[in-house]
Amino acid sequence: MNLGTSEVITILGTISFAMSGTFSAMQKRLDPFGILIIAFVTAIGGGTVRDLLLGDTPVAWMRDIQTCLIILFTSIGAILFKTQVKKFKVTLFLFDSLGLGLFTVLGLQKGINFGLAPGICIALGTITGCFGGIIRDTLLNTIPLIFRKEIYATVCIAGGLLYYLLAFLKVDLTLIKLIVIAFIFVLRIIVVKYKLTLPKLVY
Amino acid sequence: MNLGTSEVITILGTISFAMSGTFSAMQKRLDPFGILIIAFVTAIGGGTVRDLLLGDTPVAWMRDIQTCLIILFTSIGAILFKTQVKKFKVTLFLFDSLGLGLFTVLGLQKGINFGLAPGICIALGTITGCFGGIIRDTLLNTIPLIFRKEIYATVCIAGGLLYYLLAFLKVDLTLIKLIVIAFIFVLRIIVVKYKLTLPKLVY
Amino acid sequence: MNLGTSEVITILGTISFAMSGTFSAMQKRLDPFGILIIAFVTAIGGGTVRDLLLGDTPVAWMRDIQTCLIILFTSIGAILFKTQVKKFKVTLFLFDSLGLGLFTVLGLQKGINFGLAPGICIALGTITGCFGGIIRDTLLNTIPLIFRKEIYATVCIAGGLLYYLLAFLKVDLTLIKLIVIAFIFVLRIIVVKYKLTLPKLVY
Repeated sequence: MNLGTSEVITILGTISFAMSGTFSAMQKRLDPFGILIIAFVTAIGGGTVRDLLLGDTPVAWMRDIQTCLIILFTSIGAILFKTQVKKFKVTLFLFDSLGLGLFTVLGLQKGINFGLAPGICIALGTITGCFGGIIRDTLLNTIPLIFRKEIYATVCIAGGLLYYLLAFLKVDLTLIKLIVIAFIFVLRIIVVKYKLTLPKLVY
Repeated sequence: MNLGTSEVITILGTISFAMSGTFSAMQKRLDPFGILIIAFVTAIGGGTVRDLLLGDTPVAWMRDIQTCLIILFTSIGAILFKTQVKKFKVTLFLFDSLGLGLFTVLGLQKGINFGLAPGICIALGTITGCFGGIIRDTLLNTIPLIFRKEIYATVCIAGGLLYYLLAFLKVDLTLIKLIVIAFIFVLRIIVVKYKLTLPKLVY
Repeated sequence: MNLGTSEVITILGTISFAMSGTFSAMQKRLDPFGILIIAFVTAIGGGTVRDLLLGDTPVAWMRDIQTCLIILFTSIGAILFKTQVKKFKVTLFLFDSLGLGLFTVLGLQKGINFGLAPGICIALGTITGCFGGIIRDTLLNTIPLIFRKEIYATVCIAGGLLYYLLAFLKVDLTLIKLIVIAFIFVLRIIVVKYKLTLPKLVY
């Protein structure tokens, strides 16, 4: 059951980030292979950086051909059905936010399994959730969105703190995961919907 | 003999990518040390990313001072004789394409030695061939060429598929390597000469 | 005593690079979390790349919560007291140069402990000293300063060569470290003060 949960989390997160990468690359008018590469990098970037930092190699996607196939089919699907999918822009944003929650929890859990300190585990979760998008934006030569507007990372860190609060309160582990995923998912939607930003610093 | 082949492949590939890095950096008017760093990064970038993903550390160039010396002398040579070398722009392009073939086969072979799935090995070969150029272009602050025009990666992936086709047909391993190197080399020249591109996607 | 020296070196270097990252990010008008991330990346970037290349994982900052806390408090302090600190621009530059010397020696020493060749150890020292700034500038979407003006890397390499010269002359190890740190510190100040640059290459 627990394994099942993690797998479902991984698959859903991979699909949504592959979609986000595909659409970003299409906006920059890359050719189809460029799009595939960006989709791939966006979907596996966070987990790869996490595994490299932990020294858990060969990294996850190399040991699991299934992840690669999911990204390939998601990206091809998004290219082929781009007109229809564009109408579902809201759906896509929901998937992206869900992916952020899913990947943050995966990274956080992996850090705990490696016996690292809470602050480090929250950082690992944040890295897992956010780094795919950072690499994507860096390769596409824009200042990563994460440093500009959406307080992406802040949401992940808040989710990480909630995780430890619930663990401290002895809540059941599977329940904690679901609550934290839902929390990040909803918090991100609120943040984007009401255009909340952290205050800029003025000189 | 087989070891000899791999070493010759590595040396030739290193030289050509060091040259490509040196010339890119000179175009951006970096100072001599900046040029050396870009030459170094271009030549070892692909292999380093490959070794990091596999967890085969310390990475190859750290265990082998020879690679560093080759890059150093190639880059200094290219700087000193830049007028003459510029006339050989075609020669350089040929070397670069040869390097792509050589490094792709090296990466693919290393993935096979680690017992990874065919799709992953093709990805590893492509990474080994292309990543030096991606890092170079990212550091020089341009959208990597690979995502723009030359369908670099496509050529590597085609070469990887040919490798497995020939292996399936029980062709001799050394022969396979030479054929795939030649295939990537020639295919890339054709692609650039006739300005073949993958079709852009239109909204 | 020797352990104490290394720890003091690490702490001082971390503080100065965290400050440099904080100020770079504030210049680009990032929000507070963006600033924290850039400060973090600048301070741990060099050591992280070094540990990844060596395969010494989980990387240093994951095993040592203290480093993270130092960066956090330094960055928050720099944000809060920005008016006062800006008056100390010279102080900051001195800290940054000191950090460069400190981290270069740390990286060089770690390479020696891993039994690597001198040329590789000098490269490792240079990477440890410079890579935080390279990643920072790449994320902030500018051509890294290191490739443009300040011959940052050259100073590190000169320091590395001095290290081996002194070791060849059988100077005491702690004394070597202090001399090399001071050498890089002073050389960088001279280089910046007198606007020394490596000659640009002209076509």
